[in-house]
Amino acid sequence: MTEKPAKLLPPNPTIGVFDSGFGGLTVLRDLLPLIPGARYIYLGDTARLPYGSKSRETIARYAVSSAKFLEEQGADLLCIACNTASALALEDIKQAMPIPVVGVIQPGAEAALATSEASPSTPKSVLVLATTATTQSHAYAQSLNALGLAATEKACPLLVPLVEEGWIDHHVTAEVLRIYLNEAFAEAPNAQTLLLGCTHYPLLQPLIERTLAELNHPMTIIDSAAATAADVAAYFPPNPNGAPATSRFYATDSIEKFQRLGSAFLNQPVSEVHLLDLGG
Amino acid sequence: MTEKPAKLLPPNPTIGVFDSGFGGLTVLRDLLPLIPGARYIYLGDTARLPYGSKSRETIARYAVSSAKFLEEQGADLLCIACNTASALALEDIKQAMPIPVVGVIQPGAEAALATSEASPSTPKSVLVLATTATTQSHAYAQSLNALGLAATEKACPLLVPLVEEGWIDHHVTAEVLRIYLNEAFAEAPNAQTLLLGCTHYPLLQPLIERTLAELNHPMTIIDSAAATAADVAAYFPPNPNGAPATSRFYATDSIEKFQRLGSAFLNQPVSEVHLLDLGG
Repeated sequence: MTEKPAKLLPPNPTIGVFDSGFGGLTVLRDLLPLIPGARYIYLGDTARLPYGSKSRETIARYAVSSAKFLEEQGADLLCIACNTASALALEDIKQAMPIPVVGVIQPGAEAALATSEASPSTPKSVLVLATTATTQSHAYAQSLNALGLAATEKACPLLVPLVEEGWIDHHVTAEVLRIYLNEAFAEAPNAQTLLLGCTHYPLLQPLIERTLAELNHPMTIIDSAAATAADVAAYFPPNPNGAPATSRFYATDSIEKFQRLGSAFLNQPVSEVHLLDLGG
Repeated sequence: MTEKPAKLLPPNPTIGVFDSGFGGLTVLRDLLPLIPGARYIYLGDTARLPYGSKSRETIARYAVSSAKFLEEQGADLLCIACNTASALALEDIKQAMPIPVVGVIQPGAEAALATSEASPSTPKSVLVLATTATTQSHAYAQSLNALGLAATEKACPLLVPLVEEGWIDHHVTAEVLRIYLNEAFAEAPNAQTLLLGCTHYPLLQPLIERTLAELNHPMTIIDSAAATAADVAAYFPPNPNGAPATSRFYATDSIEKFQRLGSAFLNQPVSEVHLLDLGG
């Protein structure tokens, strides 16, 4: 990580994790084993999702109101486990919050760098798949370029609806992936690293791997969930004897849908979901 | 229409038209030539769309706040040009509003009846394609059954994202339609009428017709836009010498996107869009 924590936060912390929906649960899944004794509060702003097709101003307004709720619940640190909110509203959230805020863009870019071979003459070329709003912000290109990597950003607006339809191993999703990847390769034929710039996409990783093999274009696939979780853990002292982490879930829309879809992302049952009205 | 207006409203009325997004512009398109001298105020709640994947409570809250805005702008009548809001929140909106409110469900059901052949022994079978929330409400089935028609409701959650991606004449959309229609025909093999229960779907009508021909399953296709416009017009006295109608557009998210996507639905340029903050 580029920005070291100014001071370590207390053990047994409260950590707020925010996403527009369910995807951020893939980050929580990687956080759970890393910080024993932590109390997690997860907020999915499901009444106002998706963020990925909306404007910067609207995304910032929604994300800041969600972040304030988590801080009011006692969060010592906030993890923005949403690529769109991290790409478009991280500075707005940081300015509104008196606590440390960690997004997913910078950890993702650094994870892409870590797979890079040292070759000063030809910069490693990274292909980023993301929502329309994330690609239009160019947040990933800026972070990757600052690390000396070439970047191509490809908007994939149909992938989130396909995952939410449950078509994660489906011939229609494979065809949509072929179309998006071929369009991207026309622009970036030498891309070696594929960065999954949306927390829904890790559920498609097996299908993406098969599609890349069919297209005869092998790539290293990076998702920022693990790297983001490691960045969050660096804020806290080791606490090997801490109790198991606990989680509490809030959603701004249907609790039943959150429980049903959420467990696929968290890879374990999601219980005790509370309905929250953010006034939207 | 089943419910006659209690009294005719004045000529040169102000008519509020509401949708979660752009689809309601297909209803406005059909209204414009019907009521000369009318002043239309269109509100697309684009910051909170889509409604079709959300819960009844959230949809009702969003729809009522949008309806109140249009009434405050001086609307004499409100047209809920959104299938999801009509299916789940029409009663909530009517209770909150001192002005007449017309939804799209009842006019759509009556238009399906009008295509029916008189055959008391075998009720005409209607297949309704709609969003998840609309199908789960069973609002169309209730209206169609009350008219003596058999109804099968099929949720098609990928069609709105495909239309918004611009893939309205695309082999992926054709394949998704084949899948949805075949699943529906397994349940309703004798359906003769296809009711497009979402204002995005009329843009797919040519592709739906081609797909039905390939599947060797000819159907009469109904969209409720024209029937809804006729129901609204019945509230106003004929005013053949009225000035041309005028329109003013409000959106709760990106004005640029509203202008760009909106003109495809309205079939003419959408200008003068105002950004509105409903506090969401």
